[in-house]
Amino acid sequence: MSKGTVVLAYSGGLDTSCILVWLKEQGYDVIAYLANIGQDEDFDAARKKAESLGAKKVFVEDLRAEFVEEFIWPSVQANAIYEDRYLLGTSIARPCIARRQVLIARQEGAQYVAHGATGKGNDQIRFELTCYALYPSVQVTPWSMDANLMHIRCAAVLQNHPPSDIFCMTKNPEDSPSAPDVLEIEFSKGVPVKVTHLKEGTSKTTPLQIFTYLNEIGGRHGVGRIDIVENRFIGMKCRGIYETPGGTILYHAHLDMEIFTMDREVRRIKQGLGINFSELVYNGFWYSPECEFVRHCIAKSQENVEGKVQVSVLKGHVYILGRESPKSPYNEELVSMDVQGDYNPCDASGFIKINAVRLKEYNRLQNYSFRS
Amino acid sequence: MSKGTVVLAYSGGLDTSCILVWLKEQGYDVIAYLANIGQDEDFDAARKKAESLGAKKVFVEDLRAEFVEEFIWPSVQANAIYEDRYLLGTSIARPCIARRQVLIARQEGAQYVAHGATGKGNDQIRFELTCYALYPSVQVTPWSMDANLMHIRCAAVLQNHPPSDIFCMTKNPEDSPSAPDVLEIEFSKGVPVKVTHLKEGTSKTTPLQIFTYLNEIGGRHGVGRIDIVENRFIGMKCRGIYETPGGTILYHAHLDMEIFTMDREVRRIKQGLGINFSELVYNGFWYSPECEFVRHCIAKSQENVEGKVQVSVLKGHVYILGRESPKSPYNEELVSMDVQGDYNPCDASGFIKINAVRLKEYNRLQNYSFRS
Amino acid sequence: MSKGTVVLAYSGGLDTSCILVWLKEQGYDVIAYLANIGQDEDFDAARKKAESLGAKKVFVEDLRAEFVEEFIWPSVQANAIYEDRYLLGTSIARPCIARRQVLIARQEGAQYVAHGATGKGNDQIRFELTCYALYPSVQVTPWSMDANLMHIRCAAVLQNHPPSDIFCMTKNPEDSPSAPDVLEIEFSKGVPVKVTHLKEGTSKTTPLQIFTYLNEIGGRHGVGRIDIVENRFIGMKCRGIYETPGGTILYHAHLDMEIFTMDREVRRIKQGLGINFSELVYNGFWYSPECEFVRHCIAKSQENVEGKVQVSVLKGHVYILGRESPKSPYNEELVSMDVQGDYNPCDASGFIKINAVRLKEYNRLQNYSFRS
Amino acid sequence: MSKGTVVLAYSGGLDTSCILVWLKEQGYDVIAYLANIGQDEDFDAARKKAESLGAKKVFVEDLRAEFVEEFIWPSVQANAIYEDRYLLGTSIARPCIARRQVLIARQEGAQYVAHGATGKGNDQIRFELTCYALYPSVQVTPWSMDANLMHIRCAAVLQNHPPSDIFCMTKNPEDSPSAPDVLEIEFSKGVPVKVTHLKEGTSKTTPLQIFTYLNEIGGRHGVGRIDIVENRFIGMKCRGIYETPGGTILYHAHLDMEIFTMDREVRRIKQGLGINFSELVYNGFWYSPECEFVRHCIAKSQENVEGKVQVSVLKGHVYILGRESPKSPYNEELVSMDVQGDYNPCDASGFIKINAVRLKEYNRLQNYSFRS
Repeated sequence: MSKGTVVLAYSGGLDTSCILVWLKEQGYDVIAYLANIGQDEDFDAARKKAESLGAKKVFVEDLRAEFVEEFIWPSVQANAIYEDRYLLGTSIARPCIARRQVLIARQEGAQYVAHGATGKGNDQIRFELTCYALYPSVQVTPWSMDANLMHIRCAAVLQNHPPSDIFCMTKNPEDSPSAPDVLEIEFSKGVPVKVTHLKEGTSKTTPLQIFTYLNEIGGRHGVGRIDIVENRFIGMKCRGIYETPGGTILYHAHLDMEIFTMDREVRRIKQGLGINFSELVYNGFWYSPECEFVRHCIAKSQENVEGKVQVSVLKGHVYILGRESPKSPYNEELVSMDVQGDYNPCDASGFIKINAVRLKEYNRLQNYSFRS
Repeated sequence: MSKGTVVLAYSGGLDTSCILVWLKEQGYDVIAYLANIGQDEDFDAARKKAESLGAKKVFVEDLRAEFVEEFIWPSVQANAIYEDRYLLGTSIARPCIARRQVLIARQEGAQYVAHGATGKGNDQIRFELTCYALYPSVQVTPWSMDANLMHIRCAAVLQNHPPSDIFCMTKNPEDSPSAPDVLEIEFSKGVPVKVTHLKEGTSKTTPLQIFTYLNEIGGRHGVGRIDIVENRFIGMKCRGIYETPGGTILYHAHLDMEIFTMDREVRRIKQGLGINFSELVYNGFWYSPECEFVRHCIAKSQENVEGKVQVSVLKGHVYILGRESPKSPYNEELVSMDVQGDYNPCDASGFIKINAVRLKEYNRLQNYSFRS
Repeated sequence: MSKGTVVLAYSGGLDTSCILVWLKEQGYDVIAYLANIGQDEDFDAARKKAESLGAKKVFVEDLRAEFVEEFIWPSVQANAIYEDRYLLGTSIARPCIARRQVLIARQEGAQYVAHGATGKGNDQIRFELTCYALYPSVQVTPWSMDANLMHIRCAAVLQNHPPSDIFCMTKNPEDSPSAPDVLEIEFSKGVPVKVTHLKEGTSKTTPLQIFTYLNEIGGRHGVGRIDIVENRFIGMKCRGIYETPGGTILYHAHLDMEIFTMDREVRRIKQGLGINFSELVYNGFWYSPECEFVRHCIAKSQENVEGKVQVSVLKGHVYILGRESPKSPYNEELVSMDVQGDYNPCDASGFIKINAVRLKEYNRLQNYSFRS
Repeated sequence: MSKGTVVLAYSGGLDTSCILVWLKEQGYDVIAYLANIGQDEDFDAARKKAESLGAKKVFVEDLRAEFVEEFIWPSVQANAIYEDRYLLGTSIARPCIARRQVLIARQEGAQYVAHGATGKGNDQIRFELTCYALYPSVQVTPWSMDANLMHIRCAAVLQNHPPSDIFCMTKNPEDSPSAPDVLEIEFSKGVPVKVTHLKEGTSKTTPLQIFTYLNEIGGRHGVGRIDIVENRFIGMKCRGIYETPGGTILYHAHLDMEIFTMDREVRRIKQGLGINFSELVYNGFWYSPECEFVRHCIAKSQENVEGKVQVSVLKGHVYILGRESPKSPYNEELVSMDVQGDYNPCDASGFIKINAVRLKEYNRLQNYSFRS
């Protein structure tokens, strides 16, 4: 008699295959769920394997477009970056996959879900928090194997330098081309709507095409490799080596367009919300009232983040060459040294003196006499 | 009859020379103050020029060591960066120079100070706020010429790409060496105390030597060039092109060592203080009660930021290769997949369930049924 | 020949009457603008006076309803409070009045506006920033009289206790009734939609009626008096004595309903935005991109702040007696000691242990042995 | 054979007595630890009871002085308040008690600690996090009884108004005296050093005397009662009814002295740290690197919070009457309308115009034409 139905996040690899078999041995009916979010995988072979291992049903879904539009694009709007270095990458994959997996569980009347993330990592938390948030009565099946699914990562001893063959999306910068690729990225409401290669003239206009293309260009030049120590949500520090080529190009381009078009003070507040967003997503709270709230506020801030940025990509680095926008409060006349425009130099003097009122009073109080 | 004595921040260039002459014509006695903060200048020639133009006295001071130790080092501790791109550079020069200039003004009984910063920029504010904060009764003499002192900057039309000869400290990355320089930077209390070239074996151990050397290595590889649009304190956006080679290497190395050694939650709070620090310094408030307070708190956070980071510098980019520290809470056993150590996998399950309590209640309230 | 037309914020009092006369002497055509925002004033007499003093036109507008709905209500949603004590009160009047005054200026083709706020206060800034934000080409006429318009305020020497007759909206708590008034305040989307006196059964349902009634009840019991020292935007500290009876009742009631219905983490983020809002409004930035952004975000957070709060008002104090809401994630079963519900006590143990991972590692690093 | 030694936080009440007996039945040696933090308890009787129930040893410690000096005083400096209403009260008792309990455990070679806090509350977390932070290898014994220790609290159904006999420290405001008590509280470095009753002339000068006296005066006038719904750390909302008489008086007095003496911008930053402190302490993280860091920063900010505040306490409310300080940057001349002092009215105009630069550019971009 079946213990119930489990929807398993299946990857086709050894770990989740073992879990599939184990779940069946435990008496569950297993539905295998494979999500294509752009990884290099033979999905037909994986489907067949799941079936051969005894999965009751197998669902294979292409989530690439929604992954880009509904998860990566909001992260671009947020300038999402965890602890100043990690562009989230894998953390946003989990809620994308788990959301569909839970939908299938509800649809198929499954009371359980399972996944292959380890017990010491962040992915388990990201997966499970998403499931509970979207399907509160679901149960997550535990398993007894310690599976390591971290392929784009390496928990090497800290002092060792990583082997140079650890990356798979990006070329080694030393071996990358000596001539840059120059792109123009067009933004509307804070997300890319078009990428054009300025020399070759090629253009991409759908979200998935744009992101794939930027990954290709970035990968070609070895952009986006980082070797960091990060703080996991469960409290320990761990080493992570990541490559985020397309995301890195977008991070710099979006930052430029945002600061160009957004009011300074709006941007300061939005920057704080972006840091909140990054921590929430990193910790697994994509589906939470606070992350929804922050995404809403960030999206609001992006209404005028519109225009074109030219970037040059070379030897692991992204350079901003210039930008234009119909929505920027940048005022050439106001800035120019040659034109007074609407600006009166005497005002700066008053501005400074009023700002100094507080500093002078503090000095008098301290009997200030030259300290740093 | 003299109107009084003015201490002028003199650079030896055309602008401040004109101001010197003009001040004398206005009836002031002028004391010329030249500060060496590492710029490429013939200080003897500048001294002679000031004297020939009629300066009553000329002070030439080598501030390079205190500039690095008392201004750059605290900025390194803060991971100071304005609007996510600008490593402050010139903004920290102003308070360093102005502090000494004001000391001389007090010493010489001068009631006035003057400088050559323009009326539309940030430097005027940084200079004057420092003066008022340290010498409340001082008066700043106005002048009528519109002098542009921004030599490492260029307010080109935004869409134009900057000419490639605009930089003077950094080589063009495309023309930089194909082989990296690999350095080990040793930190103590969050500031560098030693830099060693791993291949050549050369070491630098004083602050000024360390910073100068990092500028040299960074410059060699074209590190630290940015082309941005920034928000000035007076409210307008302006374009800025900067090069901060040594500062960029230090920024990445310090960030790595800090996250490696600092508790995650301390770091979150410190990150906020670092953003405060950056805005305050950018706006000219180095000498203010709030900036002193923030510097104090940041310095406190750095007590265990100690260890060695290996970096590779190549073609405009800085790569972290590895790090070690006697002060890091990193625990190999705790992280390892093979050793359970002090960690019980069941605990993660409880941790996740408690974090999910709030999410489940929110779901029930919303009659949640799959929305992103 | 007229120098142009000025729209003057006229109050009917001595100060603005003098300004009216002075403006005419300077050669301006003067349009007097009187706004009724609930102050105790004979508007007909004021109109006649303005006409008799030579105003070309006189506009008298009843702004009370829009003052409550468009300015006070958003402040209630924000839990607006400056430096933890001041409920903004007068700071939100200025943008309300100035907005209409500027509309009239545009409509009447006036190039100038004028007001009677002093040069050392916040009101001048609030007024002028609003004007420039809404009518960038407007000019504000200066005047040479030093007019003190601070009637509900008193800049007494700090050590003196304020005279007890300084308040006009609130009764002295010592002389207020010995029996409380108990009210039920109903909220929808974070603003009050109904107030009912639980004993008397009287109800108020329009914004203006609700606010006026709460001012009456609060005033009767001496609620909302504060004597503080505040930091002005221009940098000096000054003493302020205020009374905000209705606003104080609403502040406590809204806070209660908000925390009852809002997710904890959304509330934390919203609390920060509320502090931003308060500083922006206090400083005069109601009409600014950042304040609009923050108001938008705050309004979004209030979507489920809906329900009823019972408050008791007595002798200067507001007591919350209870609350109910159809939108609260409060779960009686979850909290109850007698029912386990969906909560497993073992989970708390795991939650605590995971939270302790970081603390234990820090202890080991510090050779912790009992320090506070 | 003993399973080991447990140090039990013993209160003398039914719950912890049952736990003591149960622990012995389980085979542990039990050391009973009673801490006097000012609760109304017969400690001799409790000691005898513990011995009679079979405790191997009984420690009774008077922690009142250190509770005030090392826990309450830093909370006063922080203006600690959770979710804008709760003055922490009981949350700071736990780390105070647990610290000593752990010291005894180490001293007595006990491997276990136990307590009577329930599984759905915050106290369990506060207790256990403190233990793990100070004694990482300790083990907390679980027990099977569901003990409710919340005596100063009541989880009544939300709509019901609390019975009026629920409070024990404070008199019902309606029945409290009709004449106020007027006190002068003297602060040094942000903590009270003396309280004087202005009429009676009585003074208190030690921390414990001061706090006890303020509790007495506050209690007499029914100060500090709140009925709130709060968000527990484990995610659920629960109702709490608290009384914090002395703490409430100190909260208002300290706030006043702080804003009077502290620079505005330092205060803004410190306010954020205070909110962090409050959440950390509420959640049980008193002993954590981040709370230590924040306490250090807050203490630094308090260096000039020195002076005297006069407060009036009447019918549940605290009124500030006035204040004085040798350390305040308050400048009578600067504020005065009659004296220009060091302030030039033209400067305000320039200050406003520069602040308006950004607003005008935003308006032009938006084709602004009167929207709120």
